[in-house]
Amino acid sequence: MIGGGQLARMMVPPAIHLGLRISVLAETPRSSADRAADVVGDYRDPETVYAFANTVDVVTFDHEHVPQPILRELEARGVQVHPRPEALQYAQDKILMRQKLAELGVPVPDWAAVETEAHLQEFIDAHGGRAVVKTARGGYDGKGVRVVSQADEVRDWFTTLAEDGHVGHLLVEELVEFTRELSQLVARRSSGEMRTWPVVETVQEGGVCAEVLAPAPVENPATLAEAARIGQVVAEGVGVTGVLAVEMFETVDHRVLVNELAMRPHNSGHFSIEGSVTSQFEQHLRAVADLPLGDTSMTAPAVVMVNVLGGPAEGPMPVRYAEALAAHPRAKFHSYDKQPRPGRKVGHVTVTGDDLETVRAQARAAAAAFS
Amino acid sequence: MIGGGQLARMMVPPAIHLGLRISVLAETPRSSADRAADVVGDYRDPETVYAFANTVDVVTFDHEHVPQPILRELEARGVQVHPRPEALQYAQDKILMRQKLAELGVPVPDWAAVETEAHLQEFIDAHGGRAVVKTARGGYDGKGVRVVSQADEVRDWFTTLAEDGHVGHLLVEELVEFTRELSQLVARRSSGEMRTWPVVETVQEGGVCAEVLAPAPVENPATLAEAARIGQVVAEGVGVTGVLAVEMFETVDHRVLVNELAMRPHNSGHFSIEGSVTSQFEQHLRAVADLPLGDTSMTAPAVVMVNVLGGPAEGPMPVRYAEALAAHPRAKFHSYDKQPRPGRKVGHVTVTGDDLETVRAQARAAAAAFS
Repeated sequence: MIGGGQLARMMVPPAIHLGLRISVLAETPRSSADRAADVVGDYRDPETVYAFANTVDVVTFDHEHVPQPILRELEARGVQVHPRPEALQYAQDKILMRQKLAELGVPVPDWAAVETEAHLQEFIDAHGGRAVVKTARGGYDGKGVRVVSQADEVRDWFTTLAEDGHVGHLLVEELVEFTRELSQLVARRSSGEMRTWPVVETVQEGGVCAEVLAPAPVENPATLAEAARIGQVVAEGVGVTGVLAVEMFETVDHRVLVNELAMRPHNSGHFSIEGSVTSQFEQHLRAVADLPLGDTSMTAPAVVMVNVLGGPAEGPMPVRYAEALAAHPRAKFHSYDKQPRPGRKVGHVTVTGDDLETVRAQARAAAAAFS
Repeated sequence: MIGGGQLARMMVPPAIHLGLRISVLAETPRSSADRAADVVGDYRDPETVYAFANTVDVVTFDHEHVPQPILRELEARGVQVHPRPEALQYAQDKILMRQKLAELGVPVPDWAAVETEAHLQEFIDAHGGRAVVKTARGGYDGKGVRVVSQADEVRDWFTTLAEDGHVGHLLVEELVEFTRELSQLVARRSSGEMRTWPVVETVQEGGVCAEVLAPAPVENPATLAEAARIGQVVAEGVGVTGVLAVEMFETVDHRVLVNELAMRPHNSGHFSIEGSVTSQFEQHLRAVADLPLGDTSMTAPAVVMVNVLGGPAEGPMPVRYAEALAAHPRAKFHSYDKQPRPGRKVGHVTVTGDDLETVRAQARAAAAAFS
């Protein structure tokens, strides 16, 4: 696994149970996945990645940032890479993603790839005077995303693109009026075998996932069925191997529009560690190792995951363990062993049970015990 | 953790989630817990153990074999050791265990500590002509246990004890007529906080645990209540910290007699990884780190664990993964990453569900897919 963040960290437990050896190429010696970090190095350095790949049977990822030329060279050298570069590109570049989704006939917000402020302003004016602008690459957790009414509000991004010598495009999208956000997790093997989890509702705060309700409360069964259908169309259409998260808006007029893709285990699937017979982390390992996929039934009627965001005044998550664990014996705590920074995800809490509102209240209270 | 077997291996996942760093002193470089094995050395060598203990906050165990003098010296040096040596001695020496249980008023089979064949024969003759003889130390999984009718059937053991220069006693016990075996798992912190899991039924084959039914089917509610009571009396009486397994016989006349103690996570508690809100491995970590204990409710009405025993013709467990996983998508496989030997536990399978017989059939079929 390339990348030593919390996703790599949470891949270690199922690797142990399955009897697979997971080896991590981490950015720093002190990473969330340091227990499995056999190599420390820069994933942008081709020789570092090639040397690491020589020690393993299959390469997969904790993030989408490994450059395409390195990925394609790995495949040229006969290395198994999952998801494959031609799938991963749609998670790496939001403009390629929008083009591919359009080709697949999947509903998305109105969008355009813009090269100039004039072109951007034209789009904004045609969509009610406000729009969402995104950098095509490198954004996550609300970074690289701005809601603007004037094109010059992203002049710095145009400047950076010009300086980088890219043929610089930004992605602009209509500001969708949505009632809530949904996510469909799909796992797929190269053979085409697919398994999906129930569609979940994700609650964002400040562009960052705050909590996930699994399964998504049924407000309109047809909408959830449509979200599930879209998730599967995208998984097959992009040819993902491993876990894919399709993040969607449910609009005020009951449409479902795809917002983002992630080709790896995803925050919206952390509930599955306790909440599903097979977690997204175990399933990702099975899929990239080309093993049959596991059952994805829920283990309880209601499962809620709440992220723990680190603030400046707090120590690492375990500092407050004694009181938090004592007060919340049913809550499952997951520490990422990260130094806290304001807004940084340093862990999460999951509670399972029979009644959504009870479970949600417990999960929120338990997460609050750390902040 | 001293010892690098499957118990240490299965302690790694909850350590990762809790954000605790687990460090293992393993016997060999290629152990079941090698992912966490920071030191390789002999746990019988005092300096090896003292050096290892200096690198950690608290010492605990994968097995009961670390000699008492080393454990007591660790405490004398100010090292936190859990369970403490004065508790662990009852799991190390079956004669001390029987004496302590008698003192606690806990029902046990008739027993005696015997030094000579004559004394042993006298016990056998007084108990219907057959009895169970056990070495006081070092036995497990049926090793160090013989059912005999003539005292000379254990002459080799008396000889070994004499050669070792011990004041040599063997333990002899009446052959109990039992209908089934039960186990009560208890976790206890040094503060006295205790949590128990439901009493389970364990099915042994050839002295080795074959399967565990959780919770134990109710044949007589009073018997299960008595088993639970005994488990708690023993946990408090011996002052365990961490997980204790109390293995018991349910007799044909509906009594409950204590058979064995284990002061560590135990095969009869492996079901709890999926079957309980808090697994025995997570609970052991919490208890020895003096953190509040977690909820031990079952996650499903019926949970069955079946051991996978390695035969000579088989490769390591993952060799047969593809077909086994494909046929049993609901089964959770746990590989210990061990080379197979006849009768050696190389992994286990757990299935959760609503109906015991269905779950049991699924778990047996899934385990059989490896043998």
